[in-house]
Amino acid sequence: MDKKLQIGLFGFGTVGQGIYRVIEKAPNAHAEIRRICVRDITRHRSAPARLFTDQAADILDDPDTDLIVEVIDNAEASFSIVSEALRRGIPVVSGNKAMIARHLPELIELQKLNNTALLYDASSCGSIPVIRNLEEYYDNDLLLEVKGILNGSSNYILSRVFDHGESYSDALAKAQALGFAESDPTFDIEGFDSLFKLVIITVHALGVYVNPDQIFTYGISTIHDSDIRYAREKGVKIKLVAQVAKVGKGKFTMFVMPEFVRPGKYIYSVDDEYNGVVIRGECYDRQFMFGKGAGALPTASSILSDIMARRHDYRYEYKKMHYLDRPAYTADIDLRIYVRYSSTPVPDLLPFRSIREQYISEESCYVIGDINLEDLRANRDLLSAPDVFVANTSGFFEDLD
Amino acid sequence: MDKKLQIGLFGFGTVGQGIYRVIEKAPNAHAEIRRICVRDITRHRSAPARLFTDQAADILDDPDTDLIVEVIDNAEASFSIVSEALRRGIPVVSGNKAMIARHLPELIELQKLNNTALLYDASSCGSIPVIRNLEEYYDNDLLLEVKGILNGSSNYILSRVFDHGESYSDALAKAQALGFAESDPTFDIEGFDSLFKLVIITVHALGVYVNPDQIFTYGISTIHDSDIRYAREKGVKIKLVAQVAKVGKGKFTMFVMPEFVRPGKYIYSVDDEYNGVVIRGECYDRQFMFGKGAGALPTASSILSDIMARRHDYRYEYKKMHYLDRPAYTADIDLRIYVRYSSTPVPDLLPFRSIREQYISEESCYVIGDINLEDLRANRDLLSAPDVFVANTSGFFEDLD
Repeated sequence: MDKKLQIGLFGFGTVGQGIYRVIEKAPNAHAEIRRICVRDITRHRSAPARLFTDQAADILDDPDTDLIVEVIDNAEASFSIVSEALRRGIPVVSGNKAMIARHLPELIELQKLNNTALLYDASSCGSIPVIRNLEEYYDNDLLLEVKGILNGSSNYILSRVFDHGESYSDALAKAQALGFAESDPTFDIEGFDSLFKLVIITVHALGVYVNPDQIFTYGISTIHDSDIRYAREKGVKIKLVAQVAKVGKGKFTMFVMPEFVRPGKYIYSVDDEYNGVVIRGECYDRQFMFGKGAGALPTASSILSDIMARRHDYRYEYKKMHYLDRPAYTADIDLRIYVRYSSTPVPDLLPFRSIREQYISEESCYVIGDINLEDLRANRDLLSAPDVFVANTSGFFEDLD
Repeated sequence: MDKKLQIGLFGFGTVGQGIYRVIEKAPNAHAEIRRICVRDITRHRSAPARLFTDQAADILDDPDTDLIVEVIDNAEASFSIVSEALRRGIPVVSGNKAMIARHLPELIELQKLNNTALLYDASSCGSIPVIRNLEEYYDNDLLLEVKGILNGSSNYILSRVFDHGESYSDALAKAQALGFAESDPTFDIEGFDSLFKLVIITVHALGVYVNPDQIFTYGISTIHDSDIRYAREKGVKIKLVAQVAKVGKGKFTMFVMPEFVRPGKYIYSVDDEYNGVVIRGECYDRQFMFGKGAGALPTASSILSDIMARRHDYRYEYKKMHYLDRPAYTADIDLRIYVRYSSTPVPDLLPFRSIREQYISEESCYVIGDINLEDLRANRDLLSAPDVFVANTSGFFEDLD
């Protein structure tokens, strides 16, 4: 058997430590952590001290480094390490969705120019192999929609609130204590984590990169007891859902938004820190993939799969980016949304095409109406008011889960 | 763009016709059906007459054939075509699980000798990419168990019986009318279809081939109203389940058997013609994949994925077959089973280690007890009596779905 794959690891937080443990458990991966680069070399670590360095060059300049695994928390630092490694022709496995979602076009170019590979299945949906399957298995021509719960932390919080009657702040604190929520929780609860994953998924689903700034993203931080009560009365759950869907000929749309989800839909039963993705297409109808989307070991096991893939020189071919007739991104579609508000006069400010229901009380009001996604984007700031909460009540495909 | 992939198609039944339609819907597959070999060339077909031939040589001898897709119903004929194609170095995509499960060691050898590829993701679980994911994504070291509902027809029948109160024979007739059940329904309802898929899955899950004849297989044909009543009283459903699981150090077991499935388990909610597979491992815990497991178009879409993979020269590497410390197959494990009987004196004949419950009445009796799987295999004939029905009541992992 050939020599062990020599890995230079950047980052030794929960995921980094998970990778160290998982590689120990997987002798057939035939891989070895050669060096670990961390910011603070003086801290006590759960791995031999001789492995640690605070100099990136100790890994990048080492001719015996076969592969770099990058799981640091900072997107800027991550990009500078990953791009430098690719420039030197060193293949990289990364779990940094923010960095990848922001820089994917350059990263694809760097891979091509330097004939090397960047794998990042762990960046989307933890242990669920959604990127690899979209890249290799689900053809663009048949694919209609990818929709799911992509963020484990916010889903954990919503589960605690919905199924266990906890308060939002208690649930958030619990998620952080369990290590599900990132150090900056807004990343999870404002929908950015889901957004970045959705951007990456869309590249592999439809072959099109859309800048995250162009995509309507709304989280769960302003959710209120009255929203939960309303959802309960209607027999639905509120889930933070990311979706990309073909809409009409040659077009697709995408957004991240809380949604009222009916029982019987696949994602309805995705609870706690789990992620679930529905892939819908012509011919195969719906496929559902479900698994742990947060936590050190699930993410580390996904990184291990990417490491193993490198033993066989696997790389994403980004085939769909070269397809004829790739669909174009549009936000010119109508959605039926629920908006709860109190002091902000939402029905006067938001350009609804039509209003279906309106409820007014001293305590809290809501309106359900049809609105164009472009108009929703244009009024994004208004919707950030602390007394406002928005949820999607429409599916493009009513029978879709 | 390079020239279209020229496909020689063997078989034009429901799946063959599905493939023809799916390829038309997928221009980016850049593939074309060049010739179709059928038994009876005089029948009217839903494709241009010039495509059809009844001579295999018209495809095999054609130097422009890039790929053979084989979806004929007969395992013997299938093997002779597929092995001949591989011998000539022509890559093949096949959906014939019986043929593959029986001949896999030879087929692997033929691929190696002739430096060509045989892909068969469609052979297991229709549209769910279980083979590809086990081969590429789920490392043997971490993998603990693969368990699921692998046969859409028997699951459809059980759903009709369980959730809609239909009789077994009505449900079977309906499954056949819908084209879910094969021409010979015993293949589905006696568990052989699940068995063959399980054998293939095990090669890609654990790197070990086990001859189907060695594996305990029990179907649903002798299920009876009293079994359904019993399951309903206990609040469980009866599902036909195939599983392969590591048991103890360096060992694994596998079998196909009806099982009492509790609500809350993932496979409990896999109804109708759907398939669902739970992949359980260290670190990632449980992954659940769910999708259509029967029907022409879901199977055809899976074949399309294999065809697309050949555009990029994909082949299974059978990596896990070369691993150190591959686990060994054993049937020396204890199961807790339910056996219903009337005239056959089951408790006297079956060597239970211990009996947990026994119910005797004039109409129908049952016993629940612990038995070794070896003893169950040794008494397989006894269990075929029309008054006997067996179901598994134990999981290896009680918390496992």
